[in-house]
Amino acid sequence: MIDVCLLGCGGMMPLPYRYLTSLMVRYNGRSILIDCGEGTQVALRRKGWSPKPIDLILFTHYHADHISGLPGLLLTMGNAERTEPLLIAGPRGVERIVNSLRVIAPELPFEIRFREIREAQETFDLPGEKDFHISAYRVNHNVTCYGYAMQLDRAGRFDADKAAALGIPKPMWGRLQKGETIETQSGVLTPDMVMGPARKGLKLAYCTDTRPCEGVLKAAAGADLFICEGMYGEADKAAKAKEHKHMTFAEAASMAREAGVSRMWLTHYSPSLTRPEEFMPSVRAVFPAAEAGKDGKTAELNFEDQQ
Amino acid sequence: MIDVCLLGCGGMMPLPYRYLTSLMVRYNGRSILIDCGEGTQVALRRKGWSPKPIDLILFTHYHADHISGLPGLLLTMGNAERTEPLLIAGPRGVERIVNSLRVIAPELPFEIRFREIREAQETFDLPGEKDFHISAYRVNHNVTCYGYAMQLDRAGRFDADKAAALGIPKPMWGRLQKGETIETQSGVLTPDMVMGPARKGLKLAYCTDTRPCEGVLKAAAGADLFICEGMYGEADKAAKAKEHKHMTFAEAASMAREAGVSRMWLTHYSPSLTRPEEFMPSVRAVFPAAEAGKDGKTAELNFEDQQ
Repeated sequence: MIDVCLLGCGGMMPLPYRYLTSLMVRYNGRSILIDCGEGTQVALRRKGWSPKPIDLILFTHYHADHISGLPGLLLTMGNAERTEPLLIAGPRGVERIVNSLRVIAPELPFEIRFREIREAQETFDLPGEKDFHISAYRVNHNVTCYGYAMQLDRAGRFDADKAAALGIPKPMWGRLQKGETIETQSGVLTPDMVMGPARKGLKLAYCTDTRPCEGVLKAAAGADLFICEGMYGEADKAAKAKEHKHMTFAEAASMAREAGVSRMWLTHYSPSLTRPEEFMPSVRAVFPAAEAGKDGKTAELNFEDQQ
Repeated sequence: MIDVCLLGCGGMMPLPYRYLTSLMVRYNGRSILIDCGEGTQVALRRKGWSPKPIDLILFTHYHADHISGLPGLLLTMGNAERTEPLLIAGPRGVERIVNSLRVIAPELPFEIRFREIREAQETFDLPGEKDFHISAYRVNHNVTCYGYAMQLDRAGRFDADKAAALGIPKPMWGRLQKGETIETQSGVLTPDMVMGPARKGLKLAYCTDTRPCEGVLKAAAGADLFICEGMYGEADKAAKAKEHKHMTFAEAASMAREAGVSRMWLTHYSPSLTRPEEFMPSVRAVFPAAEAGKDGKTAELNFEDQQ
């Protein structure tokens, strides 16, 4: 199961009634944060989730509304006595930029490791979780900017009849199920001997600060949840969205439909957009499973037969 | 008249129900901000005051809870199309630290000027206001930290009888009253010829992050409003306050009494202090004109005969 919380849904600047867009994802005791604008640590506290287990912070880009909350968050993680290393990944310059901001957070009780994303598309595992893959993909903004998709694999079903027929002793069943290869006196036992084909896993896709593009479509394809840039609700702001390399709600809805996602949440609203809900009827006419994101909006993603 | 707003009253970390301690002071169309932690621009917006006319930002020190909101504030001032220069003053390193944080706010439509405070006590004028003096004074914290006092001078009363007796033509009265020296064919006219002795002005004193000390007492002496560090309300936290170089409410009350101020507001509360009001009866037993600061608490300071 993956827990998802849209901590905030605002773009450009934090507002009294709207935190900046940031996403927290929890899986198996680990947490991942995408972006950390001014106030993200407060949004997290309001939600009641802890910053201490954040193992990975992903930055889409380095405009201040996506990173200015980092020094405060790092200090709060330090005050919570985190000692495990933290991985921070983002476009070119991540180490230089984070270290420059750390002029006001120089002493931390944990190590920061960096992963600089350079290619148009890169995939890596959540540290310590070989079934949880993170894919960074370049989007189309006025600076280098990435979206992120997360994929949780799900192994096939264990075939007990087959294991029994092969005469595999029962104490080894669990080990094979967990993916272990076992050497016995009579030969080598491998998981594929007793496991069925891989089952449908879970997929979460995320992007802000982009025009509609192939990269987003590909990354979002078939996602269980697609959280998407939607700066403007008003149809007459299409030209403005194009100029500033953002998306309208209608454009996001078209992307969701084309990518064949199960659900979509809109986020990254312009400060001028006070009532996103007003525009949802026309959005749902294009893509029925669209929802307006709001601060603290939460979902549990479960495997299809565990919902 | 001076307008004062305590934008937030929290110390250490921003909370969902409490912004970090920051003070905004408005005088004659100009604004001064003391400290700018994460969320200060949101607190300002909640108050409904504009960041655009901020001509001076004063930093007490560079712990993150006092400066982490700066990049976002600068960008918001830029978005508001400020073009006038901004003066930023603070302890040693101000230019290096601000420029390091500006890695995420590199392009601004206004110039930033710096004033590095090095002496135990320094006084300078609010740019463009020769009657409004700012005094920086070193306090006693675990890093170099300054408190600030602001003094608005008030000229003496214009003596119309004297001006008439001296035969000064009426069109010159206003100019003399504004401090102008006028050369006439019959000699030089100076303001002191027609102005009475300077009247009582206004004084505002501010400190956070300090133990009680002589510097604070001297700077606060006779202030119309003294806004003072009060991290802990509980009497049994006196040792903790001493260890971390903060103050208890009781210590702040003693300082206010000794300095002979008119009013005191407490601020810079520990996140563990949820109900400052609970401790006020014992604070008022020491200094009756004490008030618990709260986010958005506002005062107008007026000359004594204009209240």
